[in-house]
Amino acid sequence: MSIEITGFNWVPDFARGYVRDLRPRWACEEIGLPYTTRLISPIPPKPASYFEEQPWGQVPVLHDGAIQLFESGAILLHLAEKDERLLPSDPQARATAIAWLFAALNSVEPGLFELGNVTLFSKDEEWAKLRKPSLMADIGKKFDRLADALDDREWLGEDGFSVADIAMVTVLRNADRSPLMTERPKLAAYVARGMARPAFQRAMDAQMADFQPAPVAA
Amino acid sequence: MSIEITGFNWVPDFARGYVRDLRPRWACEEIGLPYTTRLISPIPPKPASYFEEQPWGQVPVLHDGAIQLFESGAILLHLAEKDERLLPSDPQARATAIAWLFAALNSVEPGLFELGNVTLFSKDEEWAKLRKPSLMADIGKKFDRLADALDDREWLGEDGFSVADIAMVTVLRNADRSPLMTERPKLAAYVARGMARPAFQRAMDAQMADFQPAPVAA
Repeated sequence: MSIEITGFNWVPDFARGYVRDLRPRWACEEIGLPYTTRLISPIPPKPASYFEEQPWGQVPVLHDGAIQLFESGAILLHLAEKDERLLPSDPQARATAIAWLFAALNSVEPGLFELGNVTLFSKDEEWAKLRKPSLMADIGKKFDRLADALDDREWLGEDGFSVADIAMVTVLRNADRSPLMTERPKLAAYVARGMARPAFQRAMDAQMADFQPAPVAA
Repeated sequence: MSIEITGFNWVPDFARGYVRDLRPRWACEEIGLPYTTRLISPIPPKPASYFEEQPWGQVPVLHDGAIQLFESGAILLHLAEKDERLLPSDPQARATAIAWLFAALNSVEPGLFELGNVTLFSKDEEWAKLRKPSLMADIGKKFDRLADALDDREWLGEDGFSVADIAMVTVLRNADRSPLMTERPKLAAYVARGMARPAFQRAMDAQMADFQPAPVAA
């Protein structure tokens, strides 16, 4: 079966290495699953056909033979079902890995979406300046809980590295230059461990290599 | 196998009927799966034992025989795997349902978390008053995309009602008294359809019946 992942053919410098097709690329690299990419332009107007396969007009979309799906979390889970190195078969270990996959995307990432808006996209807005301290405090509390839960383990699951870590590391990386992370050595070390994996590095290099130097219209 | 779902024994009036144990209760009701509840107090300090099973100190946690897991999305998926009425076996229909499950929790709910903060928890803060217009516009764009994707179908999946609708309806309900919803009749009708299901009603009644009239310490 052939695996195809969509990506963008250009993004601004600050977003390079952070676009979410990194997640399925990383998953494929962990299990040695070959994939091709289909690059689309992020410059509006995006073609209507793209919204038909990705309702938000974003990447990634996965094609796995005849199967097509969107949402990086769903794509990660789909890929993880192929290999115990991403999702253990023991029922409790599997449940725990899937719990942490959802935790990354529904309990941790929402605060970091808001942080991205406050510190980057809307940083000159008065509301963003006023919001930043309480938001940092809110995320800090969540990060403290996460660090407690991780404790001295290397990875979130009960059975070593799993798809949950692909999700959580790529979520946490959005704060990796923030005091939120640097003041929490356990989390910083966890993210560094994830990013040091050869499969992460290959995925990152592959995403970077796919960007054109300048925007290209759709 | 016995199913146990944790819930809160009290929450403020505004939160009643919106606590996230509603999601697994609804899933169980759809497939006639009996469950018991274990009620905990939301009043701090929460016992340390609770953070061991739920890292954020929230509900729900699911026990299914010897299996334990957290995150409402992971719990929904776990329950859905038991019955085709929640998750179709056709590979593409299954992939689409899981994509929409993640979409509800990672692409739609984050904006509504922020809206809850802006319009309720932090509504008297200056930043919240300043943020509200742009946030409403951001969520509105997402809702427009969702309405386009739903189009004239009754449910999100390709094969009728699924676990994706439990997630999306419970997410969208957080805006059900907002112009965001009332100005989008397709979405409002979708949410109303979900809430009209007898299984939703039984789940809602069961959550409401479990609340004490006044806070009870842990």
